[in-house]
Amino acid sequence: MNLEHVARVADLNARYADAIDADRLEAWPDFFLDDGRYRITTAENVAQGLPLSIMYAASRAMLRDRVTALREANVYEGQRYRHVLGTPLITAPSPPSPVSGGGWGGGELRARTSFMVARVMRTGDTMLFATGCYEDHVVLDASGGARFAEKTVVLDSRQIDTLLAIPL
Amino acid sequence: MNLEHVARVADLNARYADAIDADRLEAWPDFFLDDGRYRITTAENVAQGLPLSIMYAASRAMLRDRVTALREANVYEGQRYRHVLGTPLITAPSPPSPVSGGGWGGGELRARTSFMVARVMRTGDTMLFATGCYEDHVVLDASGGARFAEKTVVLDSRQIDTLLAIPL
Amino acid sequence: MNLEHVARVADLNARYADAIDADRLEAWPDFFLDDGRYRITTAENVAQGLPLSIMYAASRAMLRDRVTALREANVYEGQRYRHVLGTPLITAPSPPSPVSGGGWGGGELRARTSFMVARVMRTGDTMLFATGCYEDHVVLDASGGARFAEKTVVLDSRQIDTLLAIPL
Repeated sequence: MNLEHVARVADLNARYADAIDADRLEAWPDFFLDDGRYRITTAENVAQGLPLSIMYAASRAMLRDRVTALREANVYEGQRYRHVLGTPLITAPSPPSPVSGGGWGGGELRARTSFMVARVMRTGDTMLFATGCYEDHVVLDASGGARFAEKTVVLDSRQIDTLLAIPL
Repeated sequence: MNLEHVARVADLNARYADAIDADRLEAWPDFFLDDGRYRITTAENVAQGLPLSIMYAASRAMLRDRVTALREANVYEGQRYRHVLGTPLITAPSPPSPVSGGGWGGGELRARTSFMVARVMRTGDTMLFATGCYEDHVVLDASGGARFAEKTVVLDSRQIDTLLAIPL
Repeated sequence: MNLEHVARVADLNARYADAIDADRLEAWPDFFLDDGRYRITTAENVAQGLPLSIMYAASRAMLRDRVTALREANVYEGQRYRHVLGTPLITAPSPPSPVSGGGWGGGELRARTSFMVARVMRTGDTMLFATGCYEDHVVLDASGGARFAEKTVVLDSRQIDTLLAIPL
């Protein structure tokens, strides 16, 4: 376990979730590399080795299009989301990289992070909306930044119809 | 990102939530400075720039009065709460402060932390009771301690009637 | 607060919960020492000083037997669980131990960690299934590993009938 790696992935995902929960969707694509991939699938699909995705985007530009579509559809009106995330597990560590004195290391790593998402309706009704884990491929740069090369959202539930509109 | 700052805010909020969840309410005011402020509001109020508070206390003494009132009202009988908090996001870092060798730095910072709170009734019924985020102004001292100069609880829901009695 | 201790307990519990949530129950006993103890009780029992346990196992072998029984009963078919854990509070620190240059320290410590567990049914129904805290006695070794000498799951609810089959 590398304390810095864990902290940087936790910070990246906390900022990512904060952007969604605060309805700053326009910031959402910026957590990805230019050619970053975003995918939503289910644990059942993963267990069966199925490549099916509920949603798939292969670039930051596609994510921007998605945000535009979401804004036009006004699906967020009167709803709020709240993510709470667990501690990241580093599943494939970054190879060691030279760190300049006191600075950050660059590199790549893979991490898994559990999440729960609540949905809060305009009426005040609060429900546990989605649970699952993020399987992230993260690129760290030496200036302390981090972005997703790939983010796969693995949902515990296979009931997905109402999820289609939602960035998770 | 400063790993020590993140860890100290996470620790402060974990101890704060633990005191509430274990019904050690008398310890609750001690997480604040003498003139520390505590406020509960809603995301809707914040978005509209409204200064409305569901609850407001401007000192540790006011929080102590509140605990006394809660004990007299016996509102906790037969209920338990459980907080789960996310990773803190440092939204305004502390200016650098001299750290004695191996010791802690002092200073001030602001942080945002997502939370979910469950309520467990005497019957065993468990519900997702409140979600939101803490907007904290934290004062760190050089001996490793930390207290809230201000803690604002921003609720995702605007449905607040039953919340009035609850420290969050 | 010792940043390394907090991070190591958080990592141990994150891996522990990941094994359960991914239905890798066979890995569950390996998070305990050979003579490690596992206990599920309720906050009510703890508050009343009652030694009652909902479940008790006094060795890794007993936990292995339990996994076998769970597999034979097929209780997991069509259900998934999702843990989200808070930041660990170190309630009894490890005595200082010599650390070789840049390496990990050994020792023992006690920690408390809040949790929420969701249950996701085959139909997609998701519910907040259990909340509570882990009271852990953790043994750290100098190679970076960590295991439970004792893990007590303290449930907030006293309603426990359906819980009997579940590793938490």
